[in-house]
Amino acid sequence: MIYLDNSATTKPDPAVLESFQQTSGRFFANPSSLHPFGGESEKLLTKAKKQAADLLHVQDEEIVFTSGGTEGNNLAIKGIALEHQTRGNHIITTDVEHPSVDEALKGLEQLGFEITYLPVDENGVVSVSDVKNAIKDKTILISIMHVNNELGSIQPVQEIGEIAKEHPKLFFHVDNVQGFGKVPLKIAESGIDLCTLSGHKIHGLKGTGILYVKQGTALFPLFHGGNQEQNLRSGTENLAGAVSLVRALRLISERKCEGIEHMRGLQRQLRERLIEMEGVEINTPEDAAPHIMNVSVPGMKPEVIIHMLGVQEIYISTKSACSSKQSDESKILAACGHEKDRSVSALRISLAYDTTEEEIHVFMNALSETIDQLKTILE
Amino acid sequence: MIYLDNSATTKPDPAVLESFQQTSGRFFANPSSLHPFGGESEKLLTKAKKQAADLLHVQDEEIVFTSGGTEGNNLAIKGIALEHQTRGNHIITTDVEHPSVDEALKGLEQLGFEITYLPVDENGVVSVSDVKNAIKDKTILISIMHVNNELGSIQPVQEIGEIAKEHPKLFFHVDNVQGFGKVPLKIAESGIDLCTLSGHKIHGLKGTGILYVKQGTALFPLFHGGNQEQNLRSGTENLAGAVSLVRALRLISERKCEGIEHMRGLQRQLRERLIEMEGVEINTPEDAAPHIMNVSVPGMKPEVIIHMLGVQEIYISTKSACSSKQSDESKILAACGHEKDRSVSALRISLAYDTTEEEIHVFMNALSETIDQLKTILE
Ligand SMILES: Cc1ncc(COP(=O)(O)O)c(C=O)c1O
Ligand SMILES: Cc1ncc(COP(=O)(O)O)c(C=O)c1O
Repeated sequence: MIYLDNSATTKPDPAVLESFQQTSGRFFANPSSLHPFGGESEKLLTKAKKQAADLLHVQDEEIVFTSGGTEGNNLAIKGIALEHQTRGNHIITTDVEHPSVDEALKGLEQLGFEITYLPVDENGVVSVSDVKNAIKDKTILISIMHVNNELGSIQPVQEIGEIAKEHPKLFFHVDNVQGFGKVPLKIAESGIDLCTLSGHKIHGLKGTGILYVKQGTALFPLFHGGNQEQNLRSGTENLAGAVSLVRALRLISERKCEGIEHMRGLQRQLRERLIEMEGVEINTPEDAAPHIMNVSVPGMKPEVIIHMLGVQEIYISTKSACSSKQSDESKILAACGHEKDRSVSALRISLAYDTTEEEIHVFMNALSETIDQLKTILE
Repeated sequence: MIYLDNSATTKPDPAVLESFQQTSGRFFANPSSLHPFGGESEKLLTKAKKQAADLLHVQDEEIVFTSGGTEGNNLAIKGIALEHQTRGNHIITTDVEHPSVDEALKGLEQLGFEITYLPVDENGVVSVSDVKNAIKDKTILISIMHVNNELGSIQPVQEIGEIAKEHPKLFFHVDNVQGFGKVPLKIAESGIDLCTLSGHKIHGLKGTGILYVKQGTALFPLFHGGNQEQNLRSGTENLAGAVSLVRALRLISERKCEGIEHMRGLQRQLRERLIEMEGVEINTPEDAAPHIMNVSVPGMKPEVIIHMLGVQEIYISTKSACSSKQSDESKILAACGHEKDRSVSALRISLAYDTTEEEIHVFMNALSETIDQLKTILE
C-alpha cells in the first residue's frame, strides 16, 4: 500500500496503540473516584496533562483533552460565542476554513451571530490588513486556521496574533489541526487564545485531541456535567486516549525537524515532476506546508483517477475527506479564484514523515500512466 | 482487587480492547475518503451501526456514535433546546438527574430557557402525574433518567413515555447510562425520542457512547462540520471506538438475563447483611436496579471508610464519581428527604456481572470491621 492521504488521517503509531492498550487495561478506574485506584488514574491524568503542556510549551491548566479536531473547533467557537454574546455578536473568519469551523459559524448565524468571511488571494492566504479592518467594537472572536487542509497554504497567524493582542476584548482561535508537526507555531507567544489539535492527524488515535485554552479564557462548555477538564469539558476522562495522545505528541516532537525536511524534499520532487506533466495545474503554493501537494487535472474527474490509483493500492484524496462526498467543487479552490474546471478536478497528495522517495516515485509513474490512459479514452 | 465501583466505570472487556486494537491498526483510513481503503472503513462503520441498531432494536440511522454519556446527554438536551427554541423554551426534568443533565440544563437557564425541576419521593422516584401536570404549551423537552446513578432508583420511563406520546410537539430524552444491561428498556416502544448510552459503564472503552435519536428528530449539533453521523455529530469517526462499543453491547446482550439475576442475588445478600449492621441506613429502595446498593453511615465520613477499604484493595464509592470531589452532601439523598447526617455519609457499592459471592463476602466483613474500628476511635 502507498498511503498518500495523510491529511485525511494517519496510520496510528504502534507505540501509540500500545500506550492506549496498556492504560485501558491497567488504569481503568474513574479519575474522579475517591479510592486509591481512582487516585492512580487521576495521577496519571495529571501527568499526561503536564507532559502535553510541556511538549506544547504551555501551562498544564491550558490543556483540554477533547475527542478530536471537530470538537476542539466547535468548543472554541461556540464556547466563546455563547459565553461572550452579551459583549458582542461579531466573528471574523476566512473563506477557506475547514467545515468544522465554517459550519459551526453557519450554525451561530442561525442563532443571531454576524460572521465576516474574509477573502483569500490566489494562494489561499488572507490579508492581514483585511483582518485588521474587519474588527469592530462588537467583535468577540477571530477564527483563522494555520495550515489549509486542501492546499497546505499557511496563514499569517503570527501577524494576526499581533493585531489580536491590541484588542484585548476579542479572542483569537487557530485551527492548527493540519499545522501541528508540519509548520512550527509557538502557541503561547503568538497572541493565540485557543488552538485546536487532533490526534489522528499525527499518528495518534481517532477520538483524541487537545484544545489549548489560554488561562483566563471563559468558555460556555459544549459538555456540562461533572466539571472535568477545568470545567470546560465534562465527562469521564478518556485517560487511555490522553496518554496515547501524549505519546503521539512526543513522537512528533522527536522527529519534527528531520521529518519536515524530509517531506519538504519529497514535495519538491513531486512539484518538479508535476510541473512537467501536461494538463496538470499545481494549486499548492511554493511556500506552503511541506506535507500537501494539491493539483488539478482539468477535464478529468478526480474520483476516476483516485479509483484507478486505488486498485493499485495507491491512495490519494480529492478535497478534504470531510466534504469529499458532498459536492464536486472545492470551495477552497473557488475562493482562490480558480475557474470551475480547475476547482472540480483537484487531487490532494499528502505525506507523512515515513513516506519514502520510492513511494513518491512509484506514485508519480502511476499517476502519469493513469492520466495518459484517461487522455486516450477521452480523446 | 475487589472492584465494587462499577457505576463509576467498569473494567474494559479484553475482547472489546482487542476489537479496538485490531480495527485501529487495520482500518485506519478515513471513512469519508473516496479511495477503496476509505471505502473499507466506511463499510465497517455502516456495519457497526447496523449491528448496534439490531442489538438495540432500533433503526440504523437512529444510532449516533458519541464520545460518551456526557456528550450524549448534552447533545440531546442542548440539541433540542437550540433547534426548537422558536417553538418554546420550557423543559421538564427531575431533582435527581446526573450532573451531565442537570448542569446542561443550568447552562440553558443562562441562555434564557425555563426549567422545571420535579421533586422525587423518599425512594428517589418522580411522580408521573407531576410530569403530566408540568407540561405547558411551550414545553419542548422532558429529560428524565432511567436508573439513578447514586441510588439505583428506577424512574417510570414507560409511563412518562405514554404521556409524551400524547404531546407530539415535545421530545422525551432518557439518560439510560446506568440502566443499560441492568434494567430492560424497549427504547423504540416507550415513547422515547432520545436515549443516551455510555461505553465505559458496560465494559466498553472510555471515549465511546451512543445517542439514540428517533427518526425525524431535528437537533442543533454540538459539533458542526463534515456532516458525519447523519449530520448530527460531525468529526472524523472513531471507527475503532464504534466497533469496540458494538462488541461491548453484544457481550451485554448475551449475558444480560443471567447477569441481572446474578447481581440481584448479590444485592439481596448485601441487603440482608447491611440491614443487620447497627448504624447503617439503607438508601437504595427494594425495587431498584440490581447493580447498586447505597447506604449511609451517619456520623462517619465516607471518605475515611473508602480509604480504609482502599488500602485492602477493596474499592467502593461515595455519591457519583463525577461529583465526588465537590461537595460533601449528596443532592440526590437530600432530594429524597434525608437529613444531612445521612446525605453526607453515603457509600455506593456497585456490581458487575462478574462480581462474585466471595467478593461480596470479603467486602462485607471488611466493611463491618472498618465500621467497628471507626466506632471505637470515635467513642
Ligand atoms: C484543518 C482541519 N481542521 C479540523 C479538522 C477536523 O478534525 P477531526 O477530524 O479530528 O474532527 C480537520 C480534519 O478533518 C482539518 O483538516
Ligand atoms: C446516569 C449517568 N448519566 C450520565 C453519565 C455520564 O457518562 P460518561 O461518564 O460516559 O460521560 C453517568 C456517568 O458518569 C451516569 O451515571
